[in-house]
Amino acid sequence: MRIRPRFKLWFVGEDEEYVFGLGTMRLLAEIEKLGSISAAARELRMSYRYALERITIVENRLSRQLVDRTRGGKDGGGAKLTAFGYELLEDYRGMEGSLNQLTKWYVDLSD
Amino acid sequence: MRIRPRFKLWFVGEDEEYVFGLGTMRLLAEIEKLGSISAAARELRMSYRYALERITIVENRLSRQLVDRTRGGKDGGGAKLTAFGYELLEDYRGMEGSLNQLTKWYVDLSD
Repeated sequence: MRIRPRFKLWFVGEDEEYVFGLGTMRLLAEIEKLGSISAAARELRMSYRYALERITIVENRLSRQLVDRTRGGKDGGGAKLTAFGYELLEDYRGMEGSLNQLTKWYVDLSD
Repeated sequence: MRIRPRFKLWFVGEDEEYVFGLGTMRLLAEIEKLGSISAAARELRMSYRYALERITIVENRLSRQLVDRTRGGKDGGGAKLTAFGYELLEDYRGMEGSLNQLTKWYVDLSD
């Protein structure tokens, strides 16, 4: 029997109010990679509508834009992170090392 | 406005079943420090009965003893970690560095 750690990570504001969770960070990471909210949503198996709502809700909580939505154009629109969204994602990536260390840990109970 | 991470950490067995959480690790740490379940319980503001039950439940889940309960004697009893309990606590302490790194992180939204 192996004992492994599991964790839930989320982010709060000044009054400990929930701001966003890991799902939002994953969404930002996919938008940055794929340059499109719909492609990012597909990759994460969520609807475009849900992904867009999620981003908008977090943007409202932060009073900052995370994603630049571009409409029209010959590519049929696209999306990329704002400078702030990118900074947030990079900061989060700095935490991933600690998170990855955590998930590697286990205790083996079979002797 | 500052955005800070919050997390919940717990440990699971082979079938992803819950085995123990941070509370159990804090209890083991206090028992190791204070040499007594009742002193550890008092320190963590829980009843002796609750602390003892918690340890017993986790021991049953692991099929291993974590705490050696000593009864009687001129010191009126005491408790110390078993070799396994101590090992588990030490392993957990190895994870604390990663956890501490995580909690230090923040994003400042006031520009």
